[in-house]
Amino acid sequence: MKIGIIGTGLIGGSLAFSLRKSGLASEILAAHYSEEETRVVLERKIADHVVSLETICLNSELIIIAVPVNAIAMILPQVLNLISAKTVVIDVGSTKEIICNAIKHHPKRKQFVASHPIAGTENNGPNAAIDNLFEGKLNIICDAEDSSYDAVELAEKVFSSVGMNSIKMSGNEHDRHLAYVSHLSHISSFMLGLTVLDIEKDERNIFNLAGSGFESTVRLAKSSSAMWAPIFMENKANILTALNSYIGNLELIRDLINQEDIEETKTLLDKANEVRKVLDNKEKNTLIK
Amino acid sequence: MKIGIIGTGLIGGSLAFSLRKSGLASEILAAHYSEEETRVVLERKIADHVVSLETICLNSELIIIAVPVNAIAMILPQVLNLISAKTVVIDVGSTKEIICNAIKHHPKRKQFVASHPIAGTENNGPNAAIDNLFEGKLNIICDAEDSSYDAVELAEKVFSSVGMNSIKMSGNEHDRHLAYVSHLSHISSFMLGLTVLDIEKDERNIFNLAGSGFESTVRLAKSSSAMWAPIFMENKANILTALNSYIGNLELIRDLINQEDIEETKTLLDKANEVRKVLDNKEKNTLIK
Repeated sequence: MKIGIIGTGLIGGSLAFSLRKSGLASEILAAHYSEEETRVVLERKIADHVVSLETICLNSELIIIAVPVNAIAMILPQVLNLISAKTVVIDVGSTKEIICNAIKHHPKRKQFVASHPIAGTENNGPNAAIDNLFEGKLNIICDAEDSSYDAVELAEKVFSSVGMNSIKMSGNEHDRHLAYVSHLSHISSFMLGLTVLDIEKDERNIFNLAGSGFESTVRLAKSSSAMWAPIFMENKANILTALNSYIGNLELIRDLINQEDIEETKTLLDKANEVRKVLDNKEKNTLIK
Repeated sequence: MKIGIIGTGLIGGSLAFSLRKSGLASEILAAHYSEEETRVVLERKIADHVVSLETICLNSELIIIAVPVNAIAMILPQVLNLISAKTVVIDVGSTKEIICNAIKHHPKRKQFVASHPIAGTENNGPNAAIDNLFEGKLNIICDAEDSSYDAVELAEKVFSSVGMNSIKMSGNEHDRHLAYVSHLSHISSFMLGLTVLDIEKDERNIFNLAGSGFESTVRLAKSSSAMWAPIFMENKANILTALNSYIGNLELIRDLINQEDIEETKTLLDKANEVRKVLDNKEKNTLIK
């Protein structure tokens, strides 16, 4: 199958590697972005050819859009305008409602499948693309009832060929949950990095004092601003609710520490410990009821 | 060397394994805490005997105190009262100023070395003790000028025998830095866990939607409340400063998201990205000037 990929960074590039390995991709076309990116994409054999957006639209049986979420919402209608009646388009953005709304009434809506493969690292760009990024991970297909049966079937085949299980939910539900289990983590980590850099700017050797706990908590602060700033804007309402709850909980523990209320602090930390059960169940791949 | 360990959990138990392996410990005595802990300590061969605090004080050449920081401040003066003039006492607590102040004027102050080996996991208790926890990590010795030369020399030998380099600083400086590079990370993670559990309590299957980013950020929320609540109290002033800066930065990004100011949000995330340089340098074991 001839596959066009628009956005050959961490996710698009890793998908290219996996789709080639699975045998699903017979030829991969990448959309031109910059000279530097073209060089890396060809050198790393992410794609066979780097071509224009129009060439991709006219020559691919399947198109995967893997650019930042605000760019997806802008490019997707153009892509649908250009494709033939047989081409299927999949996006892999981390927010879904604004993207789905952008083409809600497009005559070719049924040829599009809104997806979110939940996988990634804190790195970005075509050099960050890796093999096996998706193996054993979960993919979410949103508003599947707005896509044709064949398009959804192809999307499921694409993600299962790279080792993922797909589940379905509405774009609205997706955005509400991801605000808590992904977007808030990123904000928490970005701002933790910033806070520590702010305060310790004159004494950077103190980072040598940081243990593995700090590195784990601050890892996501390395993530791409070009990817994440648009996600925060596109999922604004859900993120503001999550962020306000988080700030409220931080104020609560701040006040308990200030009052030296060790018993209430312990109670609060014990409650937070319950996340262990949830994560351990997840590791066992048990769906928690 | 006959070594007594008071507190055979994650840190004390792991030290026992490593000190035995290094050959430095010829015999290890553990302080009795509970029947259950005694069973595990003997079963896992963490110690040769489980005895009373008094027996440890009268029979050890080196005593390591590895209980929660508030318990260290209480036990340490009693231990110093009981030991002979030749015994050296080391603590391994994550805060240092209150502990050092607790025995500042004790006649045997010079036999005590305040230490903080920066190593750990999110697990606790004697079952969490592991081999090689300290290999390649950093140990901090605080207020070394208040300890005798021989005591500091022995402490350095102890930590180097388990694979650690020791550096020196004041207890005050230690507590100020650790508030940022360790204690704040833990608070951030505990409260993130709590926030997500609060909101998603009726729909726990959504944790299946969480990627590795969430797990990394929330890992420390599994940590022991008995260990961390006292740390937060003992380093109250530094932690409140750090926590208020963190809350301020979270309010800043919340307001930028609310105003949909994508450019300023990107600028903020780009600044946070600088943590990458710092952590990469750390990985290379380069001391950053």
